[in-house]
Amino acid sequence: MKSKKQIRVGMVGYRLMGRAHSHAYRDFPFYFDSDTIPVLQAVAGRDEEGVKAAADKMGWASWETDWRRLIEREDIDLIDIVTPNNTHAEIVIAAAEAGKHVFCEKPLALSLDQAKQMLEAVKKAGVTHMVCHNYRFSPAVQFAKKLIEEGRLGKIYHIRATFLQDWLMDPDFPLIWRLRKEVSGGGTLGDLGAHIIDLARFLVGEFSEVVGMMETFIKKRPLGSMTDNLKGRIESDQRGEVTVDDATAFLAHFENGALGTFESSRFSRGNRAGNRFEINGEKGSLRWDMENLNNLQVYLADDEPGLQGFRTINCTEEEHPYAGSYWPSGHILGYEHTFINIVSELMNGISQGYSPQPNFEDGVKNQAVLEAVEESVQTRSWVGVSEKVHVLS
Amino acid sequence: MKSKKQIRVGMVGYRLMGRAHSHAYRDFPFYFDSDTIPVLQAVAGRDEEGVKAAADKMGWASWETDWRRLIEREDIDLIDIVTPNNTHAEIVIAAAEAGKHVFCEKPLALSLDQAKQMLEAVKKAGVTHMVCHNYRFSPAVQFAKKLIEEGRLGKIYHIRATFLQDWLMDPDFPLIWRLRKEVSGGGTLGDLGAHIIDLARFLVGEFSEVVGMMETFIKKRPLGSMTDNLKGRIESDQRGEVTVDDATAFLAHFENGALGTFESSRFSRGNRAGNRFEINGEKGSLRWDMENLNNLQVYLADDEPGLQGFRTINCTEEEHPYAGSYWPSGHILGYEHTFINIVSELMNGISQGYSPQPNFEDGVKNQAVLEAVEESVQTRSWVGVSEKVHVLS
Amino acid sequence: MKSKKQIRVGMVGYRLMGRAHSHAYRDFPFYFDSDTIPVLQAVAGRDEEGVKAAADKMGWASWETDWRRLIEREDIDLIDIVTPNNTHAEIVIAAAEAGKHVFCEKPLALSLDQAKQMLEAVKKAGVTHMVCHNYRFSPAVQFAKKLIEEGRLGKIYHIRATFLQDWLMDPDFPLIWRLRKEVSGGGTLGDLGAHIIDLARFLVGEFSEVVGMMETFIKKRPLGSMTDNLKGRIESDQRGEVTVDDATAFLAHFENGALGTFESSRFSRGNRAGNRFEINGEKGSLRWDMENLNNLQVYLADDEPGLQGFRTINCTEEEHPYAGSYWPSGHILGYEHTFINIVSELMNGISQGYSPQPNFEDGVKNQAVLEAVEESVQTRSWVGVSEKVHVLS
Amino acid sequence: MKSKKQIRVGMVGYRLMGRAHSHAYRDFPFYFDSDTIPVLQAVAGRDEEGVKAAADKMGWASWETDWRRLIEREDIDLIDIVTPNNTHAEIVIAAAEAGKHVFCEKPLALSLDQAKQMLEAVKKAGVTHMVCHNYRFSPAVQFAKKLIEEGRLGKIYHIRATFLQDWLMDPDFPLIWRLRKEVSGGGTLGDLGAHIIDLARFLVGEFSEVVGMMETFIKKRPLGSMTDNLKGRIESDQRGEVTVDDATAFLAHFENGALGTFESSRFSRGNRAGNRFEINGEKGSLRWDMENLNNLQVYLADDEPGLQGFRTINCTEEEHPYAGSYWPSGHILGYEHTFINIVSELMNGISQGYSPQPNFEDGVKNQAVLEAVEESVQTRSWVGVSEKVHVLS
Repeated sequence: MKSKKQIRVGMVGYRLMGRAHSHAYRDFPFYFDSDTIPVLQAVAGRDEEGVKAAADKMGWASWETDWRRLIEREDIDLIDIVTPNNTHAEIVIAAAEAGKHVFCEKPLALSLDQAKQMLEAVKKAGVTHMVCHNYRFSPAVQFAKKLIEEGRLGKIYHIRATFLQDWLMDPDFPLIWRLRKEVSGGGTLGDLGAHIIDLARFLVGEFSEVVGMMETFIKKRPLGSMTDNLKGRIESDQRGEVTVDDATAFLAHFENGALGTFESSRFSRGNRAGNRFEINGEKGSLRWDMENLNNLQVYLADDEPGLQGFRTINCTEEEHPYAGSYWPSGHILGYEHTFINIVSELMNGISQGYSPQPNFEDGVKNQAVLEAVEESVQTRSWVGVSEKVHVLS
Repeated sequence: MKSKKQIRVGMVGYRLMGRAHSHAYRDFPFYFDSDTIPVLQAVAGRDEEGVKAAADKMGWASWETDWRRLIEREDIDLIDIVTPNNTHAEIVIAAAEAGKHVFCEKPLALSLDQAKQMLEAVKKAGVTHMVCHNYRFSPAVQFAKKLIEEGRLGKIYHIRATFLQDWLMDPDFPLIWRLRKEVSGGGTLGDLGAHIIDLARFLVGEFSEVVGMMETFIKKRPLGSMTDNLKGRIESDQRGEVTVDDATAFLAHFENGALGTFESSRFSRGNRAGNRFEINGEKGSLRWDMENLNNLQVYLADDEPGLQGFRTINCTEEEHPYAGSYWPSGHILGYEHTFINIVSELMNGISQGYSPQPNFEDGVKNQAVLEAVEESVQTRSWVGVSEKVHVLS
Repeated sequence: MKSKKQIRVGMVGYRLMGRAHSHAYRDFPFYFDSDTIPVLQAVAGRDEEGVKAAADKMGWASWETDWRRLIEREDIDLIDIVTPNNTHAEIVIAAAEAGKHVFCEKPLALSLDQAKQMLEAVKKAGVTHMVCHNYRFSPAVQFAKKLIEEGRLGKIYHIRATFLQDWLMDPDFPLIWRLRKEVSGGGTLGDLGAHIIDLARFLVGEFSEVVGMMETFIKKRPLGSMTDNLKGRIESDQRGEVTVDDATAFLAHFENGALGTFESSRFSRGNRAGNRFEINGEKGSLRWDMENLNNLQVYLADDEPGLQGFRTINCTEEEHPYAGSYWPSGHILGYEHTFINIVSELMNGISQGYSPQPNFEDGVKNQAVLEAVEESVQTRSWVGVSEKVHVLS
Repeated sequence: MKSKKQIRVGMVGYRLMGRAHSHAYRDFPFYFDSDTIPVLQAVAGRDEEGVKAAADKMGWASWETDWRRLIEREDIDLIDIVTPNNTHAEIVIAAAEAGKHVFCEKPLALSLDQAKQMLEAVKKAGVTHMVCHNYRFSPAVQFAKKLIEEGRLGKIYHIRATFLQDWLMDPDFPLIWRLRKEVSGGGTLGDLGAHIIDLARFLVGEFSEVVGMMETFIKKRPLGSMTDNLKGRIESDQRGEVTVDDATAFLAHFENGALGTFESSRFSRGNRAGNRFEINGEKGSLRWDMENLNNLQVYLADDEPGLQGFRTINCTEEEHPYAGSYWPSGHILGYEHTFINIVSELMNGISQGYSPQPNFEDGVKNQAVLEAVEESVQTRSWVGVSEKVHVLS
């Protein structure tokens, strides 16, 4: 492997997403024949014990307790940001100024303005930039994209998408950082909604205008642990205010005339990872569900009458994007492979000199939708997305 | 059967819904042990040949070419209205004034005002009144209702409901009456949306406010046949304007705090009868789909950890409402049984002197939602439903 | 309807199957445009109270307490037999000798010899004869047949079929007639196995040889009620021996080279009516499940690579056999419609003078498979089916 | 990681299974907190170019062109055998004699006798031995085992299992090694049947006797490539005889009284990896399907009447065996994780000094079933399994 180009990665943060990214860097060279490979050079975190253990466990060659050190280090080519959302902007901008490529978790920023500053920074620096909307990279979703681009669905009329969870329904679940707007920037909308907005932009096109509603079902929660403990429960006399939404739903018009309905919720019992969409076009329809992410349901209107129905396609064939790099047909992939595939695109983008998507322009456009939805909730009326984005260029 | 009380029915109209109602009256005594039975006394329609053939085919004892004759006849107890929506009000009011019970297809009226007049008329006359929202009467939906009423779901947080079809997507499909607002009163919203609004009111509660969007994807269609031909296609130089929506989606707040998303469309490829809902509550969730209407998916949060998942319940057990009147477990029912079951409720209401639901008050409340959605589309903002209904009492 | 030819039916027996048949006769003229209609002329049963009530409830014009009276009556054209299996032969033979057409519940007889005598009787008399294998008449199964006949599956390699139930698993469920070989002729094999054997013969072809196993999990059961009570449970000191199987499985070679696996069981928890098959051919595959009987899963190998998958076809389109006589697409049918459809075929056969299938030749061939399976269990080796049948002609 | 115990692996062979094993060794330390970790020390293969490239690609520290060299090397603790079946015995016995632990792909041997010799060798040497029946290690299957062991299903009455594929249906697919009995030892029975036999032994218990049938649908195939090319197709004038089965089905009695039906086939269109089972017990039932391997369908008879149905459990919760080592609930795993999990068990077995299962005793018992099935096909009658195995001890 000596002749391969190495991209030395410095990752800021090391919790759930850090684990997913680390694994992807490790696994990518095993599955893909690329002339570029990522090197797990260094990981940064404030807690020395924690970062040390994480580096050891996940295979990072070194660690730092200050992310600024990562950026100063000359042996780092790419900064990967998996920290809470309120830290993204500062790190991205510093990294870009230092000439590092950046790979940032979603949502890109706390606000549209901030996202635009980040985009400006990476453009000015001329570095490669990418946002980690990993679900685009499920083979089934990539195949959906291919079908749409080939015109197999014709004009798109509808998308309905949800991202539903239920891990937060216990009123004694603590007030973790994701529930504090100043840290997270938002609740289910930014966390889950950002994913389905990205899928919709990827598959259907740009949003034109939106109107939404938001709800916080449990207004106060126990103070205590700030850790991102998905199973925790705290008995505490002290309660703090939840400053983000527990659920958001919104309607959308797309620029191409399609209609969309979107819903993100952490109060949907029985839905552990209910990231799903259905798209209806003139000539066909598609359905996808992350909990069985290998399957794409495809309906084609030009199927012979009597033989029309949704096909359940297990997207593990060599015809399905990325699937050929893994196992034989019918031998399914999991969640982690979406990260391996996005790393593949990131590596290709860096080595071949094109801007891999979703990049920070996608991040900005996504943020524009998030902001428009929030604004529409406050103003109780439709808010244009296009104009927010057009200002951009 | 001599000792059974007979309810002599006069039905106005005889097409698709007339067929469903006729069959239900015929089949009801076979399956149910009731002391009241419907008698297919007379059917009315303007076209003599047509009504005669329909009476003969469907088993009506006599026929009339003017619905007013039905109302004059003393041997008729109940007027059943299955004509286009713009005729409902006049027939209902005349029937009520003549002291006949009324059973009316949905949507009840062309407007909320009209619906209120109809309600006033039946109340003043003291006759029994019911709107034919048949999907309530699927055993699976009735069982859903039972679970919710028993508190098995706890507080309701979400409902998402759709009614999706695809029979109208050909641009050469003719401008039938359903596509002309002056006859139908509305497009998918009144035709399909009214059904899911009824299911939501039945299962979740009253709507508080809504905001929606509407679209007519094909603006002009061939003139020619006005028949309700679901498969037709016309080549014609003359085209007329489609004055109703091809698709409507809306968001809703419910009075009990639940959030709802709703969508009706005739442009959703592959969905022949995509009448579906998911309801999420504090303690459980439900899913239903009309295309497999015997099944109810039930998730219960107090299931043992590790054993939590949606159960697919084939609602053909004797514990499931109405199911015990038919076949053994696992021997499924179809679309037509929803009508037999609603006729059962109608017969019981008439003979036992209570107001069977959904009655015209439900019709008015449904119409209030329809009107609020339309208004919200025009004003591009949220519109209250409660106040429209409160005016009522 | 005056000009329609009437087939006056006399039905012997009136329990579960009597109900299904009665309903089908009543409903057939509503749905089908036939020049022949059945008339519910008379029903026979030994218990005067019971038969009287049944006649009244199900709409039979008259009743008899001795089935021989039905056969003597000149106003009866067709004898329909829905009594326990040990009575079929005598009634069929008497009816045939009296020149009545016969429609008999499955399994046709207690033994292959008996079945052959019955076939001989109807042939000699020149009457129309049919066995009530109703599942053939689900639109989805008929459509499966059409696809196979058109060669869409190519050469058939495999069928795997089950009919699984769970209503008998309680050891205190009583020793009803179905559990006594002298009355029923057999257990799950004759009751459930006969159905899947018929489906296999219909769809795949003739059996060549079989080898099987049988088990009676609960050897003794409470004596008491002999009624066919599917939910009953008896506490009784007296227990009698179960003389039929609780479960049977067998392997089969077909004459066309296909392989089959078959299983019937009343000890399969969670399976209320698990009548299912999968058929694999050179060019495609099919799957069907009675608990969702409207759906046929179809896989076609010549689908474009990447787009290959089982299609879920809701067989309610006008292209699907029989479906066009009922409701619009997506508006599903139920169990009872399989009986309406078989009655349609019976009426056509009688009025048009052809032998409707499955007829008594099918009954004999079915019985040959049943007998071969039983013999194979006793001899613990393969038993030829073809030779048993060939002796026939 | 310095303090961890290292198990230095030498792997013989490097194709499909070699890839799956290599990946598992690499990924295991990332996901599991074990005090023992595997080291990818050396890989062996006859083709120098091939083995070199494989070593490089998959991360093996060194390579050999003769497997005997691996066994001689003192820096190897464990020999992993992923070569064609006719080589297993020689390598295992040599490895055991050299005191190496052994991990062998299935089926263990070409014959029961050979398998017994292998077992004797590893027992005599006192080394750890394991057969790679990876499907046992899907979290859903492990959870099924747990439910059965806890008595949640009660007495088991039935298992029906299949492993269906369709990659071999083209008559021009070449005569690869898997189709030559002298190399593979058998066709679908050894390749696929061995897996479902293992699942049945794991979940239900020991086989008592079997009777089966086998078929080779395509008798001759093109000579040419011997590579295990799953997509290949060869046009060649020369054809050689296929000496293994294309499909096998068999019936089984289990020692505990359960009945089983089993089927393996490479001629089942649309089934890419149709490894499925249903188990029915006194108190509940289970269903599993490898193509959606995260899901276990569970039916519990003590669920409340009316609420009884199969639950679809996405076995990604921390309550599900192994699942807690990976991702949050609803974030699914794939095929490769079954290998990571079996490696986990292998590492634990070696380091903690117990015999991890499935071990070579399981391999022998599995081989006894395979042999009994083959014998039953030849003798056309039932063949006892127990006696074959009892001879063993």
